[in-house]
Amino acid sequence: MADQLVVGVDFGTLSGRAVVVRVRDGAELGSAVYDYPHGVREDRPGWALQVPYLGVLKYAVPEALQGLDTNDVIGIGTDFTACTVMPTTADGTPLCELAEFENEPYAYVKLWKHHAAQPQADRINRIAEERAEPWLARYGGLISSEWEFAKALQVLEEAPEVYREMRYWVELADWIVWRLTGTYARNIATAGYKGMYQDGYPSRDYLKALNPAFADFTAKLDAPLKPLGAKAGGLTREAAAWTGLPEGIAVAVGNIDAHVTVPAAGASQPGRMVAIMGTSTCHMMSGTELREVPGMCGVVDGGIVAGQWGYEAGQSGVGDIFAWYVENCVPPRYHENGDVHATLTELAAEQEVGEHGLVALDWHSGNRSVLVDHALSGVIVGQTLATRAEHGYRALLEATAFGTRTIIETFRAAGVPVDDLVVAGGLVKNPLLMQIYADVLDMPLSVIGSEQGAALGAAIHGAVAAGAYPDVHAASATMGSTRRDVYRPINANVQAYQRLYAEYLTLHDYFGRGGNDVMKRLARRS
Amino acid sequence: MADQLVVGVDFGTLSGRAVVVRVRDGAELGSAVYDYPHGVREDRPGWALQVPYLGVLKYAVPEALQGLDTNDVIGIGTDFTACTVMPTTADGTPLCELAEFENEPYAYVKLWKHHAAQPQADRINRIAEERAEPWLARYGGLISSEWEFAKALQVLEEAPEVYREMRYWVELADWIVWRLTGTYARNIATAGYKGMYQDGYPSRDYLKALNPAFADFTAKLDAPLKPLGAKAGGLTREAAAWTGLPEGIAVAVGNIDAHVTVPAAGASQPGRMVAIMGTSTCHMMSGTELREVPGMCGVVDGGIVAGQWGYEAGQSGVGDIFAWYVENCVPPRYHENGDVHATLTELAAEQEVGEHGLVALDWHSGNRSVLVDHALSGVIVGQTLATRAEHGYRALLEATAFGTRTIIETFRAAGVPVDDLVVAGGLVKNPLLMQIYADVLDMPLSVIGSEQGAALGAAIHGAVAAGAYPDVHAASATMGSTRRDVYRPINANVQAYQRLYAEYLTLHDYFGRGGNDVMKRLARRS
Repeated sequence: MADQLVVGVDFGTLSGRAVVVRVRDGAELGSAVYDYPHGVREDRPGWALQVPYLGVLKYAVPEALQGLDTNDVIGIGTDFTACTVMPTTADGTPLCELAEFENEPYAYVKLWKHHAAQPQADRINRIAEERAEPWLARYGGLISSEWEFAKALQVLEEAPEVYREMRYWVELADWIVWRLTGTYARNIATAGYKGMYQDGYPSRDYLKALNPAFADFTAKLDAPLKPLGAKAGGLTREAAAWTGLPEGIAVAVGNIDAHVTVPAAGASQPGRMVAIMGTSTCHMMSGTELREVPGMCGVVDGGIVAGQWGYEAGQSGVGDIFAWYVENCVPPRYHENGDVHATLTELAAEQEVGEHGLVALDWHSGNRSVLVDHALSGVIVGQTLATRAEHGYRALLEATAFGTRTIIETFRAAGVPVDDLVVAGGLVKNPLLMQIYADVLDMPLSVIGSEQGAALGAAIHGAVAAGAYPDVHAASATMGSTRRDVYRPINANVQAYQRLYAEYLTLHDYFGRGGNDVMKRLARRS
Repeated sequence: MADQLVVGVDFGTLSGRAVVVRVRDGAELGSAVYDYPHGVREDRPGWALQVPYLGVLKYAVPEALQGLDTNDVIGIGTDFTACTVMPTTADGTPLCELAEFENEPYAYVKLWKHHAAQPQADRINRIAEERAEPWLARYGGLISSEWEFAKALQVLEEAPEVYREMRYWVELADWIVWRLTGTYARNIATAGYKGMYQDGYPSRDYLKALNPAFADFTAKLDAPLKPLGAKAGGLTREAAAWTGLPEGIAVAVGNIDAHVTVPAAGASQPGRMVAIMGTSTCHMMSGTELREVPGMCGVVDGGIVAGQWGYEAGQSGVGDIFAWYVENCVPPRYHENGDVHATLTELAAEQEVGEHGLVALDWHSGNRSVLVDHALSGVIVGQTLATRAEHGYRALLEATAFGTRTIIETFRAAGVPVDDLVVAGGLVKNPLLMQIYADVLDMPLSVIGSEQGAALGAAIHGAVAAGAYPDVHAASATMGSTRRDVYRPINANVQAYQRLYAEYLTLHDYFGRGGNDVMKRLARRS
């Protein structure tokens, strides 16, 4: 099998990436990026619309294959952002591509970050709580406005003709695979994490309580559920023409960007947490048993790797808090050399742990995991007239590390061991941040080996779908890669952060667990 | 008495000001400012040294008198910053002017803001508490490192030869009057507020416990104590030559800048609080009876006006917090038109009360009154990714208003009525800030009529010393001026701030009264 290749395609929000990977060792032999010609329509508060797109398949895949023999390619895998959804006809034609719906915003793709369905989400949560729906606990007690049901209920209530006309309410992760194979199957990950599928969908009675016209909504989700890494079908002649790949090769079931990164980091085994750190942080974690971990985002059977319980947790604000700070809280003299993050990082790195005298809470866009409360907000304690911009910056880096620690400790306390931490994502490039995490967590940090983790992970799933490996674990062990223990805890810092973390926890519980609900009251007024 | 004039001289930290005032109505007929040719030596942490100076008398007074008949001047009054002290010989010669001490920092003037005597102040407080010294409560339980005893004890312990050589440890407020009259008298205000004089100085036993060599320190303070507004003596021939004033005219006893402002604002009667708002805020308040007001800076019999108990309270950070924010927390786009305060104020004024969703604690340089704790620090709660610089700015303006409210409510709760509030100082020029104070306090704000309140107040004391009025009240009623009720509370804002103040108070007590001593722990580490 020396020459066998697989293709992985990662669909992002503004661009897509294709890689060509050698099956026997995971070597990345070709890659290409395709920037979408269209943008995101965000002209109404909370809205984020897009058009559906196949350009990555048509342009990035052939470009990545240049100089390689396409006949060596045995499979293709894809990943997409999750809870990016749209209405289609029975054959998968997007409603927005029908002439009559061309000017109808509700017929377009609702991106993951569209959260204008908050009133619907509030009702979904309230009624689920009232009825003590058993699946609610698996989502930390809170269904997001970004998920499938809230977005669909918004369509029903605000554009009933679109709702009536749509045969399917489709995750783009699955729609891409449908375009590649000609058959519609739902992947277990988006169905489980975003579609509330847990041994079945929420009941008809519950949906009726949300809105009588919503009672039969799950018919619009109805498609065979398939496990991750399974073969969805063979590549159609049409899709072979788009991509330049051989007709009939294996196409893997759709998947989520964060989830495919786990095997790319060689971390598919239980006990290994993968933290994908960017604008926000996503924590992916598999366990052999179902545990109730308080305040997680979701737990799904086979949700990350088939045969394991896939736990997902998250911090809603990480890189975006640092970006907000740079944009809004840093005076002109730090802007002189152009790279404000670099300037602040350099100055912050000169400080001893605790020297700035600050402790912050990292809830500027709420708390997604452990507390699961979107009405929480940021705090900084300890400012004096001697506080400088680099002090506040470092306090925020530390606050996000403390936030990660609360998540890991919550997993451990619930009986889900976290033995190992692998980091991926854009923030991995900041060595100060990485060292702070190692010191705060008192764990060595391993770093994903590939710079295109999601696309590599998609390719790994393509290899499994093609039968080159018996399962994702085996493919991950060979094709994934991790640089082990790149950052090791420094003992003096660990001790100092132990004390600061105790301060963080006290404030975390005071402001987050009912000691003082000032944040909720302030949010209501603003 | 149509033509009688008095001169008031206000000695600031970097400049001094003289005004010539008509006795019958307080009209300001001439004024001049003199910027000192010397600066402040602050080259060691916590140190602030200066040289003693008579330039204001020699240059500003004659300039202010231009075009007026000096023979009409019947008296002169002065004020100075308080706890600005220096060592002198028996005739008042500053030790720093002796050749042998020219290069000895301990022989120079220690400005009010010199706080390098903190270790000595800590001992002063600890031992006073252990011995249950009765005077401690009159200073809110805390003696400042800036005051006379701490600074003198630092001289004894760090430069014993200077301590040995000095005959007197003199407030510059009194030294100036000594230069004008040829005789040394202590004014009751600096003696009481800064020299711990309360029916006598602290006992010899107590001082011995601080340091055996300090047992007889009060001999170095020994001089006749004189009430405010009294005549200290007649102007000497030498001083007449400096100033151009007639020899022998009445010279008033020395006084403090904040304290002389009270009669200048026409607010010498009990129940009227004067808030002098600048870098920090000083609250001056007279009462007919001695009450224990928890956490005040000091209460002194006749300390503001003879015959009344003078209460002083303060907020250690006000204008300097706003300046710190502008310097350290505001991004470039707000700096474009040059006046950042004006830009932020304009944007902040567009907001509804509570719209920013923030509440802050104004303790960036500790809490001087009510809590009396220098280890406290600033807090801001409620930041989100939508928080902009003008929101934080407004939250800090509001926090200082909440701080003033805690002081006023503490006075009232202790049985000292506060019926009226007159504001003075540089911050009076910010109408948004003034309206916020009126709304937060639910009181109309009156504004001092003069732009040179301290110098006018000094002149009023000169008029009383010259016998033109029977007492300071009478002189204040005629010569002082206030614009009444310039800012009136707006009812909707009052209601909204009532709720925000409740949030402030909860955080105030949590962080300031032992609910969570995180600030002290953070301060120790930084």
